[in-house]
Amino acid sequence: MNIVSLLTDFGIKDGYVAQMKGVILSIANPRIIDISHEITTHNILEGAFVLRSVVNYFPKGTVNVAIVDPGVGSNRRGIIVTTRNQILIGPDNGVLIPAANLSGDFIVYEIINEKYMLNSISNTFHGRDIFSPVAAHIVNGVPFEEFGNRINDYIDLDFDVGKITNGSANGRIIYIDQFGNITTNIEGNVLKRIIDHGKKITLFIGNKKHELLFVKSYSFVKNKQILVTIGSNNLVEIAVNQGNAAKKLNIKVNDEIKILFK
Amino acid sequence: MNIVSLLTDFGIKDGYVAQMKGVILSIANPRIIDISHEITTHNILEGAFVLRSVVNYFPKGTVNVAIVDPGVGSNRRGIIVTTRNQILIGPDNGVLIPAANLSGDFIVYEIINEKYMLNSISNTFHGRDIFSPVAAHIVNGVPFEEFGNRINDYIDLDFDVGKITNGSANGRIIYIDQFGNITTNIEGNVLKRIIDHGKKITLFIGNKKHELLFVKSYSFVKNKQILVTIGSNNLVEIAVNQGNAAKKLNIKVNDEIKILFK
Amino acid sequence: MNIVSLLTDFGIKDGYVAQMKGVILSIANPRIIDISHEITTHNILEGAFVLRSVVNYFPKGTVNVAIVDPGVGSNRRGIIVTTRNQILIGPDNGVLIPAANLSGDFIVYEIINEKYMLNSISNTFHGRDIFSPVAAHIVNGVPFEEFGNRINDYIDLDFDVGKITNGSANGRIIYIDQFGNITTNIEGNVLKRIIDHGKKITLFIGNKKHELLFVKSYSFVKNKQILVTIGSNNLVEIAVNQGNAAKKLNIKVNDEIKILFK
Repeated sequence: MNIVSLLTDFGIKDGYVAQMKGVILSIANPRIIDISHEITTHNILEGAFVLRSVVNYFPKGTVNVAIVDPGVGSNRRGIIVTTRNQILIGPDNGVLIPAANLSGDFIVYEIINEKYMLNSISNTFHGRDIFSPVAAHIVNGVPFEEFGNRINDYIDLDFDVGKITNGSANGRIIYIDQFGNITTNIEGNVLKRIIDHGKKITLFIGNKKHELLFVKSYSFVKNKQILVTIGSNNLVEIAVNQGNAAKKLNIKVNDEIKILFK
Repeated sequence: MNIVSLLTDFGIKDGYVAQMKGVILSIANPRIIDISHEITTHNILEGAFVLRSVVNYFPKGTVNVAIVDPGVGSNRRGIIVTTRNQILIGPDNGVLIPAANLSGDFIVYEIINEKYMLNSISNTFHGRDIFSPVAAHIVNGVPFEEFGNRINDYIDLDFDVGKITNGSANGRIIYIDQFGNITTNIEGNVLKRIIDHGKKITLFIGNKKHELLFVKSYSFVKNKQILVTIGSNNLVEIAVNQGNAAKKLNIKVNDEIKILFK
Repeated sequence: MNIVSLLTDFGIKDGYVAQMKGVILSIANPRIIDISHEITTHNILEGAFVLRSVVNYFPKGTVNVAIVDPGVGSNRRGIIVTTRNQILIGPDNGVLIPAANLSGDFIVYEIINEKYMLNSISNTFHGRDIFSPVAAHIVNGVPFEEFGNRINDYIDLDFDVGKITNGSANGRIIYIDQFGNITTNIEGNVLKRIIDHGKKITLFIGNKKHELLFVKSYSFVKNKQILVTIGSNNLVEIAVNQGNAAKKLNIKVNDEIKILFK
């Protein structure tokens, strides 16, 4: 079974994603799975986070195409990244790198061989004209070296990792999902080794201070109450039981947070 | 051909649905069909209605996973429901039951065998960690009894059925679709046996009274006029030709309606 | 490999699209690819444009089902259109014709044989009850003549083609995408033969006059600046680099535009 997954900021109304799928299916015969097409326009960080959040759940050998590409048509490069068990394809602007780091042992190739692109390349839609046919040719077994040389000067992107001590955790907000749940860059399994579920903590966020509980899941606090838990990405998450934490706390991505648990 | 269908309130922006698909495809090789991921957050009734509306259209043996799960991480159970020709998987909160009743002859199993769950189970995402792998193992032929015992004390959910007499029909609104078409719990085929298309009727809805026509389809009245018809789910529907009935009538789910046709 | 593609104005919340997929998969075993379900309700022109924009990217023999159908339940006909390498199915209201013209050499058949429809046909959902089973039977190899006779009096629809002279291009807006990029009916490859990238031009749009550049792609002008380029559909496009041109210029579909490049 071959899988191509797609992540873009193209939305689902226009025919852009379908054009990509048509191109892929004209060359190869993989399953095609949508990761998301609702990444905020040109928001590389958001695309990088969502790609990173799914990459380890796909079978070995999945070809993940991620197009959040404000620089399309400029001289930014296209790249293929191979990791321990995944293939990532997209623009060289950092969007692939957090997923590559999580997946591990990665190697980056430049995409320059026009043999594997559509004959007529538009200047505004490399997702369709370059990245989709490249993905399909990889599914068909074309070796990575065929597309271009290995490079080391790719553009890096990193969410950092929050700092955890015996008495506190410091980090920042890296993603807010559609439920308004707030994901931080503080690692859940590390925090869990220091404090137990049910522990009272102090959360500093958006210039305010909240006394609340570190709990196993949302339903361990009353409706509409704020809580801190370990989210499904193994990252510390701030949420409101059956409510929208981002709205309630009036925060945004990159805001700093601090948790005291002494 | 094996099919897994997915219904959730997870939305299509975040990577949650893709994580579920990755988990399923790491274990089994079914086709995956999206029913909807735009169920209103935590709205079990709405999810139950949409699941019920599609269940009889899928081939025998389809594994339908439905996750609208405000109680995730609490002690609510997960269940598998087998019906005459479908399999339903989801939380034990009623979301599966109207579909099970429509499909017929159903049996409920509790999901307790951790052998068929992901090794590391988050407390906030059973859709990915429990329900997806269970669906995949069912596709692979694992017998239902392997997952847990049969139970009879599942949580029930019922849309009732509106009352039809020779002179009137009484019911309530159970769903409003994206076009603003209003679905009631009054059975279309029963009404059709009593009155014919073209019949003048009186509709009481939202404390107002409307004199209008029971018609074969939208285009049998003028643009922007209210009408009553039998919708595609064989339920009586109130609509506006090329307009939005829900907005025009200012009503909501669970509001009562009455039709006089004497 | 058989492919059925789907374009509708049904949205992605309700179960309507899933019902169509269930019907198709109950009869045949094609891959199913979504083109779009977010066409503006009843907007035949918009559906026709999106279908036209994708049709040439799908493999030969793809069965494209396009349902934007304000006249459902009236006496409007259903049609099958075969082209040089595609099959198109939908209502006879023009939605299929621009794609048919682009694909080339098309023939139109009426759909009248009830043998290939669902047994119980609702009056409000021919997408599920007629067009989906017809698509599935075509995938299974039923000859086009089996569904009904060839017809020539189908409803036509045409986006026209803008006029280009040595000194100017005149056309109109035919589509605005989710990024706010404005597609015109002026052919890109024809314009390209007359003026080069980097050329200064004067754009008349929305009763205003703009002095700007005809460029290779968005990033050739500064952020938030208006530009004219050749879009990915080979049509002249008006855009704003990393911005929304439709909002900035306050225009709408069918507005006329004029470009002077002397």
